[in-house]
Amino acid sequence: MLALTAAEMLHLKETLALRQPGHGLPRPMYHDDLVYRGEMDFIWRGGWLFAGHSCQIPKPGDYFLYDLDGDSVILVRDNEGQVQALYNVCRHRGSIICEAGEGSVKRFICPYHQWTYALDGHLLVWRGMQEGLDKSQLGLHHAHVRELEGMVFVSLSQDPPDFEPAYQAIAPMAHPQGLGRAKVAKIIDFDVHANWKLVWENNRECYHCNVNHPQYIKANFDHYNVDDRIERVATQLATVTARSEAKWAEEGLAVTRTETGLTEFPDPDHNIWYSANRTPLVDGFLSETLDGKLVAPLMGDYTEPADIGTLRMRMLPNFWNHSSCDHSVSTRLTPVGLTQTQIRMIWLVDEKAEEAKDYDLDKMLPFWLMTAEQDWQICVNQQRGVNSHAYTPGPLSTYKEYNLDRFLRWYLMQMSSAIG
Amino acid sequence: MLALTAAEMLHLKETLALRQPGHGLPRPMYHDDLVYRGEMDFIWRGGWLFAGHSCQIPKPGDYFLYDLDGDSVILVRDNEGQVQALYNVCRHRGSIICEAGEGSVKRFICPYHQWTYALDGHLLVWRGMQEGLDKSQLGLHHAHVRELEGMVFVSLSQDPPDFEPAYQAIAPMAHPQGLGRAKVAKIIDFDVHANWKLVWENNRECYHCNVNHPQYIKANFDHYNVDDRIERVATQLATVTARSEAKWAEEGLAVTRTETGLTEFPDPDHNIWYSANRTPLVDGFLSETLDGKLVAPLMGDYTEPADIGTLRMRMLPNFWNHSSCDHSVSTRLTPVGLTQTQIRMIWLVDEKAEEAKDYDLDKMLPFWLMTAEQDWQICVNQQRGVNSHAYTPGPLSTYKEYNLDRFLRWYLMQMSSAIG
Amino acid sequence: MLALTAAEMLHLKETLALRQPGHGLPRPMYHDDLVYRGEMDFIWRGGWLFAGHSCQIPKPGDYFLYDLDGDSVILVRDNEGQVQALYNVCRHRGSIICEAGEGSVKRFICPYHQWTYALDGHLLVWRGMQEGLDKSQLGLHHAHVRELEGMVFVSLSQDPPDFEPAYQAIAPMAHPQGLGRAKVAKIIDFDVHANWKLVWENNRECYHCNVNHPQYIKANFDHYNVDDRIERVATQLATVTARSEAKWAEEGLAVTRTETGLTEFPDPDHNIWYSANRTPLVDGFLSETLDGKLVAPLMGDYTEPADIGTLRMRMLPNFWNHSSCDHSVSTRLTPVGLTQTQIRMIWLVDEKAEEAKDYDLDKMLPFWLMTAEQDWQICVNQQRGVNSHAYTPGPLSTYKEYNLDRFLRWYLMQMSSAIG
Repeated sequence: MLALTAAEMLHLKETLALRQPGHGLPRPMYHDDLVYRGEMDFIWRGGWLFAGHSCQIPKPGDYFLYDLDGDSVILVRDNEGQVQALYNVCRHRGSIICEAGEGSVKRFICPYHQWTYALDGHLLVWRGMQEGLDKSQLGLHHAHVRELEGMVFVSLSQDPPDFEPAYQAIAPMAHPQGLGRAKVAKIIDFDVHANWKLVWENNRECYHCNVNHPQYIKANFDHYNVDDRIERVATQLATVTARSEAKWAEEGLAVTRTETGLTEFPDPDHNIWYSANRTPLVDGFLSETLDGKLVAPLMGDYTEPADIGTLRMRMLPNFWNHSSCDHSVSTRLTPVGLTQTQIRMIWLVDEKAEEAKDYDLDKMLPFWLMTAEQDWQICVNQQRGVNSHAYTPGPLSTYKEYNLDRFLRWYLMQMSSAIG
Repeated sequence: MLALTAAEMLHLKETLALRQPGHGLPRPMYHDDLVYRGEMDFIWRGGWLFAGHSCQIPKPGDYFLYDLDGDSVILVRDNEGQVQALYNVCRHRGSIICEAGEGSVKRFICPYHQWTYALDGHLLVWRGMQEGLDKSQLGLHHAHVRELEGMVFVSLSQDPPDFEPAYQAIAPMAHPQGLGRAKVAKIIDFDVHANWKLVWENNRECYHCNVNHPQYIKANFDHYNVDDRIERVATQLATVTARSEAKWAEEGLAVTRTETGLTEFPDPDHNIWYSANRTPLVDGFLSETLDGKLVAPLMGDYTEPADIGTLRMRMLPNFWNHSSCDHSVSTRLTPVGLTQTQIRMIWLVDEKAEEAKDYDLDKMLPFWLMTAEQDWQICVNQQRGVNSHAYTPGPLSTYKEYNLDRFLRWYLMQMSSAIG
Repeated sequence: MLALTAAEMLHLKETLALRQPGHGLPRPMYHDDLVYRGEMDFIWRGGWLFAGHSCQIPKPGDYFLYDLDGDSVILVRDNEGQVQALYNVCRHRGSIICEAGEGSVKRFICPYHQWTYALDGHLLVWRGMQEGLDKSQLGLHHAHVRELEGMVFVSLSQDPPDFEPAYQAIAPMAHPQGLGRAKVAKIIDFDVHANWKLVWENNRECYHCNVNHPQYIKANFDHYNVDDRIERVATQLATVTARSEAKWAEEGLAVTRTETGLTEFPDPDHNIWYSANRTPLVDGFLSETLDGKLVAPLMGDYTEPADIGTLRMRMLPNFWNHSSCDHSVSTRLTPVGLTQTQIRMIWLVDEKAEEAKDYDLDKMLPFWLMTAEQDWQICVNQQRGVNSHAYTPGPLSTYKEYNLDRFLRWYLMQMSSAIG
């Protein structure tokens, strides 16, 4: 990694200082290559990244790749059943080892000179090399990896932040969803011409939901904020919340978000970059679908009638998930440039569910696919606008954009503390 | 806007000093990103730019966009009938407000959170924002705008040069053409892989016309220069000029260019970046068409038989127009990178003319479409050549390239005086 | 040419010093724009480059272009039958003169203003220019050019290295092949997304051949190295070599490579960037074809049965050739960016051979086309891997990658000595 020079660090520091409290980010944060390089180093290579679901690689030798910023990481299940994260780079001449984005292998054989590595990365065979070299030093480089209830996270950092608090906060909430006993129903990749922060900014407020997300707002309460919470909504929310408490408290499945508006996240003052909560759905909605009806068999530990709202999880800088009782949708962000983000959405169902028989993608996909595409268009519009020299960051709504402000403060804190 | 550093300014100054008098520009002027950034700041953001014709937006709420260098400007007719130039950037989070390149609206509603602006840019509605903010400070940013006989010019500069001299020089000439009572017959956009200066250099001489523009030279005298003006041409020009004077002087429509060769333009010694003149056509040509015959009803104040030559107007850095008695053709340049220029051509006819009935595009377009495409190919060839390390600027013809030299001196003067 | 600044030179020097002896190159050598700029200046513009074959331009006025790094060079046969290398840039305004990649002309006429040059580059006609200019100073710029037994080499350097040693080393070996009496059977261009050095690194070892080149290894001995040379192979090689010596020694066509493994090349200690040798083929192979049988009439001075192995020639930084008795295959590299190389392959046969009657491309092309495409895929894989921050250069096999080490040392020597 090419380190930033002292002059570049100073320039970056001055740029970060341009943000006015309570306002959006200034133009250079979306427009300066140096900012992007800093983000890659300090945030994306510094933290934990969602790579995919462990159910994508059920058997030893199954693997998929996660590519970021020139790097390619192999997520593979080894013979002991553990997920390993290995850099997809031969230790000999540097060829990639796995050409396909996913597959199943017994051992990793470099296509160039057939150096051969075990599933845990150690070097097994290197025909043609001279004596006197230390084979044990030439296994595949490892990245840090953690599995969390069927979700796989990697860190490209030598010294990643402690994953344990994230695990403790999320695992108990996630366990009943049974993501470890799931299967992929559908993966869709989007190429969105917007800076990754704009995608998060969009995700961190529902001020835009009323007009932009007609499907989403029918199912949820969280677009109502303190300034527009009317009596009817408050009453309905109270009813739903109370019923949930009465019915599900014992099993730990009662909703934990009992207010309108989005759960507060992240927490820049305590550097909390992960969270999970259970959020009520509108009466009549058992699942985040167009009509609120189930579209697949129940997942995990849920039992009929599973009016357990939605489980929501998120981890900065690249992951969020909305899980209904019958299906679960993960979103993974990957910057591929200053103004371009690759976004992968993964729909999961119970591992025993069979397509056509137990579920129908035409019924399952629209809710989140429509909501997502509405958001990507918004992000592209915003990128077009912040490109302008005439862009000046406006004031944020304290009622509706509190989480956006939290996100921006978290972002600035990460960057600033890395620069020192 | 990221200002240039002192070191960059110095480098730019040294680069500009490389030009040898009477010769073309050195390679870095077409090849150095810093030169391009300087041009954007000093010339394109410093001067007046042709955006389009006011007849594109006849009614209140009609708008079109003009995009340059990351910025997007909305040209809109307000309720008082004035053309406003508003930056297409929401004052809240910076989203663009108008997604389509043209349209008609009652008010501007940002697609993100529905902040709503009047046609004059002031903020009308911002539901969801807290008390204590000053709404009057959050209208859309304005750019400077001037209308000149149906032509719309904008400036992105905070402090644009005085438009009045340009107005005084051009308006009386343009008035009889009636561009304010015109309509668009056709718009064609070209993506030309050449630096914008090469397009102007090509425009500023007719040394290349004899071989490259077989259509153009049939209609015009201006490709004959002092060194190749023969008796027959001089006689014909004198005849045509005298006839024009006799017939049209009273109405102010007599030709003003009475010599062969191009009118001298620009004037770097007095910083004249605008001009207009009336130029004779060859006997038998009433319009710049393949056969010289009319292809549409007369425009403006002209009356049959309208042997009034052609009205020509030009403004640096991005506009020229050739108007015949029956149709008018505007050309607008927009750099989209160091070696790429977007070029828009707009054909206008009288507002009452109806396609198919009164005019036929197959007859109207070829003259200028062929001439333009011949020129764009020349510019691409030149760009390919000046990319070469072996390119050395050659001597300019004092007979035929005097205007090119004027253009280069004007360009260097603009750049140098901005650098100081 | 924009010279590198002192700071850039220092940075480049430090980067080059990162290489550990006996290992591959560090990541910046494939990833740093400055390294690429240095290579263009010091290696590609400093040395001799293969442009094509003289049989591509048999008659006066025949020409083809060779483009590199923004420059375009016209290789043309003049009226005296000499090959000239002229920069494809008009001395007037810098337009390219030849638009097509190859053709035949009587004189060079610039398409812009018809300045006209003779085939040797001097300026013949410039209508419209004033008195007092020195026409003799405005001929087309020349590049250095040398013909070597039908192969055309150019240098963009003002002061190219001495070509004579290369000529002396190669011409006697090449002469019997008769490339000066050949014709082009096929040209194929490949756009390979890999740094040019990776293409050479691949070319300089046959460690990868066993698995990747099933066709190639059937015909050749050179993929066997000191560590894997078995008795049977040694015996067969000895037999073939002895027979060649007995039969062809008098005519100077005996094989000169009598060992397994690749001929040592280049020689960084003596800056030898050219070489040629004659290499045995496996018993039963008269030509590098899928079945070893001839696919065209004998070339040059060869006579039946022409079991003369293969003639191999190479010149850094952009040329190699494998010639069988009946056809010859040249490969030319041209970097078009840090991670992209244009590769041209040219198949030649005897000038009197007629397609369909005397040779069939379906039989001639597969051997080298398959081998080449196998290699290009390898290079692309390696580029993808060395892009990674996790790439660390591994140890090279002293048995099998000795030439790769020689290439890397030559490369570093060229760069370092240019930096000083």
